[in-house]
Amino acid sequence: MDIDLPEVKAEVEAAFARYEAALVANDVATLEALFRDDPATIRYGMGENLYGMDAIRAFRRARPAAGLARRLERTVITTYGRDCATASTLFHREGAPGKVGRQMQTWVRLPEGWRVVAASVSLIDG
Amino acid sequence: MDIDLPEVKAEVEAAFARYEAALVANDVATLEALFRDDPATIRYGMGENLYGMDAIRAFRRARPAAGLARRLERTVITTYGRDCATASTLFHREGAPGKVGRQMQTWVRLPEGWRVVAASVSLIDG
Repeated sequence: MDIDLPEVKAEVEAAFARYEAALVANDVATLEALFRDDPATIRYGMGENLYGMDAIRAFRRARPAAGLARRLERTVITTYGRDCATASTLFHREGAPGKVGRQMQTWVRLPEGWRVVAASVSLIDG
Repeated sequence: MDIDLPEVKAEVEAAFARYEAALVANDVATLEALFRDDPATIRYGMGENLYGMDAIRAFRRARPAAGLARRLERTVITTYGRDCATASTLFHREGAPGKVGRQMQTWVRLPEGWRVVAASVSLIDG
């Protein structure tokens, strides 16, 4: 298995950057488009466990749009072969001083493009 | 991409079961063997952010062995192609009433076998 093939990594980095821009802008349509639309897609959030894209969509559409700006730290994207990647990052928000957020995603290349199939977000003391 | 090929899923389910048995038994050698031994392997734990297998090993070897028993709930393993999978599960521990744990792993098939390359563990109110 080829790990961190430059051309594959560049694709995932672009998808990740697009996701991050959509997140801080609360661009729900793009956020939804970048997750695999399937019952097997799972997102463990700050305070909720979302099984399936229907649950993820319902959560995102009800989410308050304020206070989403954040600063990323120690972002690591690693690709495994040509169709699988992980993206891990810490983040800090002004509204949560002394805390560090963690976001970990699994990205898979599907016929429709790179999509998140599993994601976990949590907050701990920094 | 073939998703949830039965023979691939069976392999990952076996690896996941082996990992879970090692976890509750604090079988550190097996836990370490099932993570990819690489600086790119990342584990976000309950209260620590571990970058690289050296950091993961140091954490595991210093970890208290008591109170690791847990009950899994809503475990979902999904395979993407033949070399990539995600495993997500909730868990409950007697020592943490009213809380729900979440564990999410990305597994990759390497020459040495299926290995966890990224994992996130966190606890929220249940």
